[in-house]
Amino acid sequence: MALSTHARLDDDHERQAVHEQLLTDRVVASFEQATDPRLKEVMQALVRHLHAFIRDVRLSESEWRTAIEFLTAAGHITDDKRQEFILLSDVLGASMQTITIANPSVGNATESTVFGPFFLENSPEIPLGGDLAGGARGTPCWFSGRVTDTDGLPVHGARIEAWECDEDGFYDVQYGDDRMAARAHLFTDENGEYRFWGLTPVPYPIPHDGPVGKMLDAVGRSPVRAAHVHFMVSADGLRTLVTHIFSQDDPQIALGDSVFGVKDSLIKEFVHHDAGEATPDGRAVGDRSWDSVRFDIVLAAEDA
Amino acid sequence: MALSTHARLDDDHERQAVHEQLLTDRVVASFEQATDPRLKEVMQALVRHLHAFIRDVRLSESEWRTAIEFLTAAGHITDDKRQEFILLSDVLGASMQTITIANPSVGNATESTVFGPFFLENSPEIPLGGDLAGGARGTPCWFSGRVTDTDGLPVHGARIEAWECDEDGFYDVQYGDDRMAARAHLFTDENGEYRFWGLTPVPYPIPHDGPVGKMLDAVGRSPVRAAHVHFMVSADGLRTLVTHIFSQDDPQIALGDSVFGVKDSLIKEFVHHDAGEATPDGRAVGDRSWDSVRFDIVLAAEDA
Repeated sequence: MALSTHARLDDDHERQAVHEQLLTDRVVASFEQATDPRLKEVMQALVRHLHAFIRDVRLSESEWRTAIEFLTAAGHITDDKRQEFILLSDVLGASMQTITIANPSVGNATESTVFGPFFLENSPEIPLGGDLAGGARGTPCWFSGRVTDTDGLPVHGARIEAWECDEDGFYDVQYGDDRMAARAHLFTDENGEYRFWGLTPVPYPIPHDGPVGKMLDAVGRSPVRAAHVHFMVSADGLRTLVTHIFSQDDPQIALGDSVFGVKDSLIKEFVHHDAGEATPDGRAVGDRSWDSVRFDIVLAAEDA
Repeated sequence: MALSTHARLDDDHERQAVHEQLLTDRVVASFEQATDPRLKEVMQALVRHLHAFIRDVRLSESEWRTAIEFLTAAGHITDDKRQEFILLSDVLGASMQTITIANPSVGNATESTVFGPFFLENSPEIPLGGDLAGGARGTPCWFSGRVTDTDGLPVHGARIEAWECDEDGFYDVQYGDDRMAARAHLFTDENGEYRFWGLTPVPYPIPHDGPVGKMLDAVGRSPVRAAHVHFMVSADGLRTLVTHIFSQDDPQIALGDSVFGVKDSLIKEFVHHDAGEATPDGRAVGDRSWDSVRFDIVLAAEDA
């Protein structure tokens, strides 16, 4: 190769890098007039990171088309009951990263995890000791614990929302009717204590018959979530906690939760009880075994 | 673990940063088993950049929800005729960055720009000197030039596809019928020369009645594209060129093209001719003024 050719290629290379950077700078500058300073900050950062990604991997035009087709398919499968963009955010760890930022650990406060797509407003209220199953099938499980603030003082009247899947791994919203099951809310007593019957959680796959499932399959990842029960706990003056508890016996914890929701502090001991063993409240659970778990909850101050 | 390390981990910020980085690392590692090395590279880079964006701006949960709602709305407005995700990619400069990477500048070869959503296969063929308007209204414009390779040798039989909007800013695909207008293809002669009648391009907004339009509005950006005519030029052994030409008289160039497609080298002089001035091919254009523009095209070698 002649010297002049080398020189030309070096020039080309340098000119190319200048072109790419100039384009990014131009797009960033196009947001300069935004009157909302936070919107401007977020959009300019988005452009910088998006362009850095495209430049880092030297994204090809056919890969770009694949991305457009992926987003289109995700949009088309999304409706009132199915939210493929939340699934996408979940499996890329974006949901968990957002939650980690919004809920920094504070002293001994209970850690938070992903909200998930299955929460419903207006769950039925149950009394202390009530049953949230609402007809959903599964192994009966006794949940109990105490809600305190970070000073250890009991929180009276804390609202606990709990929701979970049935033994087949389905939430009520996936049943295809308007039934509510395996979800409820209740309030702590004057000692901050709560107790209720629910179901022993089981691992289940996130919906994986859409584009997100195809992506997981293409990269050899499992869509399965570690077994968990959702909790949302709120009380005046305290930071609302959105979290799960996981079971230490669940092998999926070692295999990896598909949405990266597991934190060590949220793994609890689910105690197995043989059929016939007396239940804490004397309830007859029939001819089957049951489980119990204790989950003490510490709420951070609202301004912590 | 050293005492000093303990002290550092006790610091809230430090512990938070460790949590956030650990999460990113975990998500990146989840793609480690992908058998397609390119897919693995792209997904791992996507995760790194996405998490860096979320961490940089300290994305809030309500901002995350806004993003999910935005993507959902973009998915729902997208159909066979409307592609909101391509618009989104365009207005964030992602399309232009991908094209810039795929078509690095080579010596004196004509630069490329965005393809856009309005190309159609099977445009009508016109002879040299023919008219591509096909009934679309606008100021007549005489296009001419020569196609050469980077050594200046004329390219005989190069296929030139040209397409543009009418004087109201609409492409034929937006008319709502199956008519083709303001698009055609033709071939260069043995001297690499081409010439045809078309329309003087006008600025027009990208579709802005959807989520992308709302975003542009929120940040004070115009949806208007600088006036342009699309060209796609192909010939055996040479790299296919997808580009536009812009008009130096268009004030929108200074205001900013909404999809960042303008490159200095693509801004051409559209010469104004008063009504009655003789046309290059003697064609009568009636009682109106007309324009002319020269666009010489240099194609890079296929393997450049």
